[in-house]
Amino acid sequence: MNKTVLGVDIGGTHMRLAMVDEQGRVLHHLKEKTLIQEGAGQTAERLRDECRAFIGQAAAEGSRVVAMGLGVAGKIDRIRGKVLFSPNLPALNGYPLATELQRELGIPVVLENDANAYGLGEHWARRGQGIANWIGLTLGTGVGGCLILEQRLWRGDDLGCVAEIGHMIVDPQGPRCACGARGCLEAHASARALWQSVGQAVARGELTAGPLFEHWQARALDAAAVYSCAQQGDELARRLFDRMGWALGLALANLFTVLGIRHAIIGGGVSAAWDLFIGPLRRSVEEHCMMMPVQNLLIQRSLLGDEAALLGAARLAWQQGG
Amino acid sequence: MNKTVLGVDIGGTHMRLAMVDEQGRVLHHLKEKTLIQEGAGQTAERLRDECRAFIGQAAAEGSRVVAMGLGVAGKIDRIRGKVLFSPNLPALNGYPLATELQRELGIPVVLENDANAYGLGEHWARRGQGIANWIGLTLGTGVGGCLILEQRLWRGDDLGCVAEIGHMIVDPQGPRCACGARGCLEAHASARALWQSVGQAVARGELTAGPLFEHWQARALDAAAVYSCAQQGDELARRLFDRMGWALGLALANLFTVLGIRHAIIGGGVSAAWDLFIGPLRRSVEEHCMMMPVQNLLIQRSLLGDEAALLGAARLAWQQGG
Repeated sequence: MNKTVLGVDIGGTHMRLAMVDEQGRVLHHLKEKTLIQEGAGQTAERLRDECRAFIGQAAAEGSRVVAMGLGVAGKIDRIRGKVLFSPNLPALNGYPLATELQRELGIPVVLENDANAYGLGEHWARRGQGIANWIGLTLGTGVGGCLILEQRLWRGDDLGCVAEIGHMIVDPQGPRCACGARGCLEAHASARALWQSVGQAVARGELTAGPLFEHWQARALDAAAVYSCAQQGDELARRLFDRMGWALGLALANLFTVLGIRHAIIGGGVSAAWDLFIGPLRRSVEEHCMMMPVQNLLIQRSLLGDEAALLGAARLAWQQGG
Repeated sequence: MNKTVLGVDIGGTHMRLAMVDEQGRVLHHLKEKTLIQEGAGQTAERLRDECRAFIGQAAAEGSRVVAMGLGVAGKIDRIRGKVLFSPNLPALNGYPLATELQRELGIPVVLENDANAYGLGEHWARRGQGIANWIGLTLGTGVGGCLILEQRLWRGDDLGCVAEIGHMIVDPQGPRCACGARGCLEAHASARALWQSVGQAVARGELTAGPLFEHWQARALDAAAVYSCAQQGDELARRLFDRMGWALGLALANLFTVLGIRHAIIGGGVSAAWDLFIGPLRRSVEEHCMMMPVQNLLIQRSLLGDEAALLGAARLAWQQGG
């Protein structure tokens, strides 16, 4: 009987589930809203039901699901299979998500921070292959980060928190971040930073008409909407992507300078706005990175898009249960 | 015949030379002004003569100098034994210092960045012993940095530039740094930052009398003088050490957040002002480090003082020529 695993990525907005074979091929795929406002229990139940459906489907196709990997945005306790603190999924704080799913599904379930899962996915399956040292960023509701050092996922002192690049402070006078600090990268370069800044412009009376305002009024202001408004020439939307590029460039410049490495790979849903922020990003790296020859630096867009964290979670599942 | 090595540390202001045994004990020690304004050739000649004197002394004592390690502030080419770019010792740029000394002294000479040498020294001989992962900072004319990861000196992609923590930008609106960027840690937390800020206060007419002004007027304004003025209650001097602590705390907070590690060791001549900057430093870490429990962080003062880089250079010499 063939073996497969499940890879799951639970983000602030969407939840993705895939059945993945040992070569990293996605056999089946599902994407739905996380709807965490329904509570952790509800989300866990829905996820469990989807997993059961996948396990049944695998059986019908003559294969067996042997393990599951779970990427979650936030600080996690890998040993206890517990989400410790998730700013974007607060209902999951303290919730023993992996332990519970493991008990109910009867297969090993490994928990990992979603940005680390993204790094493992890229490293396993795409851009990161063969690059010894690289910095990973995922731009989504928040900004996640990972470090691959000497071909391995860097875990630091295993404090449950590593490579939180989104919470590097790039401007101590900058906007307030969800974490409480001022001027984090995430407060400049996440989907939330985009829509919050639009909301603030509305509150200040600076944005009173036009497509961006209409999206905001219709409560349909996601990163894609801000992107399309910027594409159509909206000044505020363009400025927000300029700022995103500036902040990403400053953070990367600092990381290149400190780590003495030259590769970065940027993924996550908001990286779809690549053409709008990559120019300001490169100018910012050039302005802020004085110790390295900038022409040696390689900043690439993830080729996996939404699938990187999924695949990384599946990779962990293979390592654990395969 | 006993073997010994020479360890040398060439800083922007002072040059230190020591004979070191295999256990890391300093047998003889010399400290003098670098006087780099006399030119690289002059400095190299003086250094060569001092080394010869040490080699002669060793012979007289029945031991033999088998190698030499050389720590230099700046970007270096380890393979070619050349200083590539040293902001604080510009006369050395492009100078084949190690190759030349090796030829003239007839022993292997290894070149290393002085902050890396400091890290090796601490790791070999003192504070760093047994700590797997730590961030090193040396506060001198500039600010040097090193990373010890998994018990080894981190070299990144071996680009000749690594752990340049002094050139992390902590405040993009901050003071101009010697490297050309704005708001580097070094522009807040080095001896040069201290004396330049005093000079600027004089130029703006804000400092016109008192001990700090007199030191400045007498061209005797080093970090120690600013320190003693702060001790005596001088407002400007105190503010400068507050700012130093704030910037160090912000840089360390960012590094703890990104690396997921919890140790830092601060050395270099200016770390003698510990009691003045450690309070603001700790408050700044607390304010800026939201992802880690701050009580788990350990920020220590180097126990080696001036000797860390010397000892690290000696350590390299032992690895090379012992």
